[in-house]
Amino acid sequence: MTHITNARLLFNSVPKDYPVPGETTVYDTTETIDLESQSLNGGFLVKTLVLSIDPYMRGRMRGPDADSYIPAFALGKPITGFGIGVVLRSENTAVPVGAHIYGLDFCHQEYFVLPDISGFKFLERDPGLPWSVYVGAAGMPGQTAYAGWKEYAHAKPGETAFITTGAGPVGSMVVQLAKRDGLKVIASAGSDEKVKFMRDIGADVAFNYKTTNTAEVLAREGPIDIYWDNVGGDVLDAALDHAAVYARFLECGMISGYNTGHQGIKNLHQVYTKSLTISGVAILRLAQYDAEFFAEVPRALVSGILKYLEDVSYGLDSVGDALLAVQTGANKGKAVVVVAEE
Amino acid sequence: MTHITNARLLFNSVPKDYPVPGETTVYDTTETIDLESQSLNGGFLVKTLVLSIDPYMRGRMRGPDADSYIPAFALGKPITGFGIGVVLRSENTAVPVGAHIYGLDFCHQEYFVLPDISGFKFLERDPGLPWSVYVGAAGMPGQTAYAGWKEYAHAKPGETAFITTGAGPVGSMVVQLAKRDGLKVIASAGSDEKVKFMRDIGADVAFNYKTTNTAEVLAREGPIDIYWDNVGGDVLDAALDHAAVYARFLECGMISGYNTGHQGIKNLHQVYTKSLTISGVAILRLAQYDAEFFAEVPRALVSGILKYLEDVSYGLDSVGDALLAVQTGANKGKAVVVVAEE
Repeated sequence: MTHITNARLLFNSVPKDYPVPGETTVYDTTETIDLESQSLNGGFLVKTLVLSIDPYMRGRMRGPDADSYIPAFALGKPITGFGIGVVLRSENTAVPVGAHIYGLDFCHQEYFVLPDISGFKFLERDPGLPWSVYVGAAGMPGQTAYAGWKEYAHAKPGETAFITTGAGPVGSMVVQLAKRDGLKVIASAGSDEKVKFMRDIGADVAFNYKTTNTAEVLAREGPIDIYWDNVGGDVLDAALDHAAVYARFLECGMISGYNTGHQGIKNLHQVYTKSLTISGVAILRLAQYDAEFFAEVPRALVSGILKYLEDVSYGLDSVGDALLAVQTGANKGKAVVVVAEE
Repeated sequence: MTHITNARLLFNSVPKDYPVPGETTVYDTTETIDLESQSLNGGFLVKTLVLSIDPYMRGRMRGPDADSYIPAFALGKPITGFGIGVVLRSENTAVPVGAHIYGLDFCHQEYFVLPDISGFKFLERDPGLPWSVYVGAAGMPGQTAYAGWKEYAHAKPGETAFITTGAGPVGSMVVQLAKRDGLKVIASAGSDEKVKFMRDIGADVAFNYKTTNTAEVLAREGPIDIYWDNVGGDVLDAALDHAAVYARFLECGMISGYNTGHQGIKNLHQVYTKSLTISGVAILRLAQYDAEFFAEVPRALVSGILKYLEDVSYGLDSVGDALLAVQTGANKGKAVVVVAEE
């Protein structure tokens, strides 16, 4: 019997504002596992390969009482999120050894046992892409962009779209979909490096919102027909002010409020003065685009027709820093933690 | 030559908050007119019969610099709004004497000359309805309710709708359309008398928002699948909190902010957590429902299948008070000023 460390990342305390590595979450190495003899009880043993670090996870770092569309993390237990693992041993005939599984409730621990595949799905990888891309441009963020755009943008060639967090995994996919549809694209992000990437993927107007006034850019380059919102707050208010009649607003997230509270939106009356439509984009309710997405996007990422940017860190002990980085915007592309190679 | 007074209501000053009768608008009797000899220059002479007093008019009481979807009233000139008049004399062969005209840019003056019919349309009256109804349930407010509901509500029998200003000309029509479509209707207004009217027209749950907490009603009677918003502010925030997944929000107005400024909306993040759709309802952009509306609604109002409530005052000198009343909610039904009988 060879017991090895089975590290995990525990949810330790509800953050007051931004999540603090080592305090909000704690990297814990007290558990061990014997990979050969660990009892499976008819289930299967998973080795964690890749974990996705996403902005929405801040919403799960709350007390158990607050109501939301997605459950709170359990205090004292490992956090969960999108992830990919490989099956090491199996007593479940439906789950072969060597299969890769993917799901939203992936445990932040190096190894764990699952009773069955429910809540997860099998994943196959294109040889031209690393697994990490399957939690990014070829995974949930890419799907969010793809399905949201197809369902709600109603894009027409020649229109103008404004896309926030345009260098992130959702925003950068939206930038490329909008350019493919023949739109003028205005895109914002929080560093000059990200601005360069947005230009590289085709944004006509790319700017650093920390050094350039968003409202002034929209006044000059707008009005906007489509707004992809990942930030909320003042930027949403500016977009409402500079929207064209009949503009479509796709609300995907409001990271400006995740850590310090949502600021009131003051210009929502523009909805009726301009006949706007505001739609919420939630990928878990847009499964009708899954087949089309997987048939098209991974191939386009391999060929380079669609581009992506990753910010990869290594080891479960780097998750706490990555969780903070995606809240402050310090990450440079899709935040992914590679826990282990195969 | 017999000169008679040709009274008018002038826009006198931009209000700080609520419009003040005699200050924001001034009733002016300095002009006279000779109805027989007034030169028409190829146009026609109109006698004003009915003027519509509507909440949106507050938005036009501003300085000429502020940008909006609808022009500001001109300082020192008569205000304008929806109105109905009869043609007394005409040199325009397309406009017969005795015809009735209706339009948005109707001058708040007893008599005026128009060059042609552009911007107005001819109106015929069902003998069972007074002209006043054609600026209310059979006019713009009724059309707003009808077209907005048909275009954006996507109502399904058994769903729950929450309708604000449910005793007003828009809200009361929406209440009745929602009941006709088989929905459970929650409706709010600002007096017990209005609550009684909302019950009379079929609201399942009717309450006075001044004495009953809106969020508590929605927590008990919701979640809501459709929200018809005429008020904005805290009530919109409560509706966002108590919306069902896939709920539709129809934003028709936000009177809570017209006089004292729009308050920030804090719960807009519910748009993506619940996959909501928010649509702006602007009747001037929903003309595709006009024919259907006029074929159906006036007849239903005559027969009593659809009900309406009017708050009629008489004389152009009562417009100032009526303008204030629709902002404070003191009006008891659709505010109409009858300037003259035929």
